[in-house]
Amino acid sequence: MDLNRRTVLAGAAATLAAAPALAKAPLAGAQSASAYRYKIGDYEVTAIHDGFFSRPLEGFIKNADLADVKKAMEEAFLPTDRIPISFTTLVVNTGSKLVLIDTGNGDSGAPTSGVWMKNFKAAGFDPKDVDQVVISHFHGDHINGLRLKDGSAVFANAEIAVPAPEWAFWMDDAKMAAAPDGLKPAFQNARRVFGPIAKDVKQFEWGKEAAPGIVAVEAAGHTPGHTAFAIQSGPGRMMAMSDTTNHPALFVRNPTWAAVFDMDGDKAAATRRKLLDMAASEKTQVGFYHAPFPATGFIAKDGAGFRMQPAQWSLAL
Amino acid sequence: MDLNRRTVLAGAAATLAAAPALAKAPLAGAQSASAYRYKIGDYEVTAIHDGFFSRPLEGFIKNADLADVKKAMEEAFLPTDRIPISFTTLVVNTGSKLVLIDTGNGDSGAPTSGVWMKNFKAAGFDPKDVDQVVISHFHGDHINGLRLKDGSAVFANAEIAVPAPEWAFWMDDAKMAAAPDGLKPAFQNARRVFGPIAKDVKQFEWGKEAAPGIVAVEAAGHTPGHTAFAIQSGPGRMMAMSDTTNHPALFVRNPTWAAVFDMDGDKAAATRRKLLDMAASEKTQVGFYHAPFPATGFIAKDGAGFRMQPAQWSLAL
Repeated sequence: MDLNRRTVLAGAAATLAAAPALAKAPLAGAQSASAYRYKIGDYEVTAIHDGFFSRPLEGFIKNADLADVKKAMEEAFLPTDRIPISFTTLVVNTGSKLVLIDTGNGDSGAPTSGVWMKNFKAAGFDPKDVDQVVISHFHGDHINGLRLKDGSAVFANAEIAVPAPEWAFWMDDAKMAAAPDGLKPAFQNARRVFGPIAKDVKQFEWGKEAAPGIVAVEAAGHTPGHTAFAIQSGPGRMMAMSDTTNHPALFVRNPTWAAVFDMDGDKAAATRRKLLDMAASEKTQVGFYHAPFPATGFIAKDGAGFRMQPAQWSLAL
Repeated sequence: MDLNRRTVLAGAAATLAAAPALAKAPLAGAQSASAYRYKIGDYEVTAIHDGFFSRPLEGFIKNADLADVKKAMEEAFLPTDRIPISFTTLVVNTGSKLVLIDTGNGDSGAPTSGVWMKNFKAAGFDPKDVDQVVISHFHGDHINGLRLKDGSAVFANAEIAVPAPEWAFWMDDAKMAAAPDGLKPAFQNARRVFGPIAKDVKQFEWGKEAAPGIVAVEAAGHTPGHTAFAIQSGPGRMMAMSDTTNHPALFVRNPTWAAVFDMDGDKAAATRRKLLDMAASEKTQVGFYHAPFPATGFIAKDGAGFRMQPAQWSLAL
C-alpha cells in the first residue's frame, strides 16, 4: 500500500458500517489541569502553569536579525510571526514548609494567562497553606499573583521574601523618578503589590537561603536584582533559573541574544552563559519560568550554545 | 559573587530570621492528573497518560551495541540501566463521536501504570460516553483497558474496531498453535479481551476510515497488523504513529534499531523510516503511544535519523 497521505485520505470515502446512534459527547473547549510534580531529594516540587502571553516576534530580540530568530523558531516548530511566552511557577513542599517561587500573573495578565489559581487548586493546594512566597524579580508576571487588582492579598498566611538588590532598585523613589517613562509602570506596580506589606517583606541576599534549602543565586542582568534559586535536599538538587533565559528555543540555543525585557542585555547574557555552563557541566536539573510547561529539564552544550532536554514526564515521583 | 555551586551552598548556613510557625503542608506523594488537550482542525484530541513500565535497557534493542544504546539514553538525560516506557492513549472528540484510540493497560499492567481511568475521568470523560474504541494492534498495553481482569467490559456503549490484518493474525487458532511458547500468552490475551465480543467487533482495512476522519494507515512490522492513524479534520491533520517507534530518544534518533517487541524488525524499520520521512517532509503533527507524555510533537531530519520536537504545551486549544 502506498503511504502517501493523499492516497491514504482518498481511501477514506469508504467508511465502516454506520455506528449505532449514541450520545453526542460535548467538546471540552478548555485545557486540562496543568500541574506537574517531581522530587528533588525529599522535597516535592510542583510546577503550576499560568498560561501564556503571545507577542510579536519582531522586536523581541534586541541584537539578532529577525530572519535568524524566525529560523530558530522554525527549528523548534514554533510560529514565526508571534512567540507564545508561557509562565510556570514552582511550589516547593519541603515537608515542613510550603514555599512558592514566583506567583504568576494573578488577574493582571493577558487573557491567555490567569489560570494559576485554578491549576494550583487542581494540584491539591490552598493559598492559605502557603508558608512562604519567594520572588525572583519584580516583573509583573512574577509578582502580580500576590495581589489581585482589587487590592486583596492572595496568600494570607505567607511570609513574602524578595531579593534585597531587587527591592533596593524598584522601591527607590529616586530611581523611579529618574526612570524612562516606559519603565515607570513597573516601578508603580511594585508599589501596588508590595506597598501595603512593605514593613513585613523579608529581604534575602545572594548566596543565602531565601527559604529552607532554597539558596538565592545572583542572576542579575534581566533586572538589577534578578535571582535564580538553587534548590537542594539531600543529594537532590535543581537550579530554578527564573528569567535567566526567556524561551529556551531562542536563548538556550543562542545565549548571546538579548530579549527586549533584559534591562542589561550584556550582563544578562554573561549570567546566562555562566548558569547554563554550570547546569551543563554538572548535569543539574533546571527549571525556567518561561520554558514550555512543565518547564523543567536538563542542559547540554550544543555548538556555540546549548540545548534543553525536557525531563520525561513520570507517573512516579 | 562566585556562582560556583559549592560556594553558593556554603553560604546557605546563614538563613533568614525564623519564619512564624505555620501549618505543615502534607506531601502529595502522587503525580497530578496527566491529560493534555489540543485541536486537530475541529477535532478535540486529549492525550490520556497511563504511567509507564520500566524494563532493563540490556536486551531491549536487538541490533545495536548496548554501549550505543546507553549513549542515546545519556544524550536524552534518561537512565542508562533501565528504560521507562510510557503509555499515552488518545481520545478524539469529533464533535459527534467520542473515539478512543487504544486503551492503556487496564488493571493488567505494571504497578507504575494503571492510572488511565483516573486521568480519563480527570479530563472530564466518562467511559459510558465512548462511542468507538479504535485499536492499533493487539499487544496487551493497547487492549487490556477494554476488559478488566475480572472479565468486565469497560466501555459499555462503545463499538470496538480493530485492524482486519491484526484480527486475522492473532485470532487464528492455527497461528496460535504454531507460535513459539513466548508468543502464546499474547494470543491467549487477545482471546480474553475480544472473545466475549468477537461477533460485534468491527474490522477495518488499511486505507479506510476506522472512525470518522480517522484513517487506518498500514504500519506493519511491530505486529503483522500494526496500524497508524491519520487524523484529519478540515485543514488540521495529525499522524498517530502508535508503536511505529518505541521511545523516540532511541528509535526516532536511530530508525534502524529494532526493539525486542518488534515482531519483524526489518519490516518495522522500513515502516518507521517511511512514516518518519513523511512526517518530516510534511511537518505533520505526530503522536507516539510510547513517547513521553503528552506524547505529541513534530519530526525533523537529523543526521542519519530524525529528532522529535515535543509540541509546546498550550493553555489555548
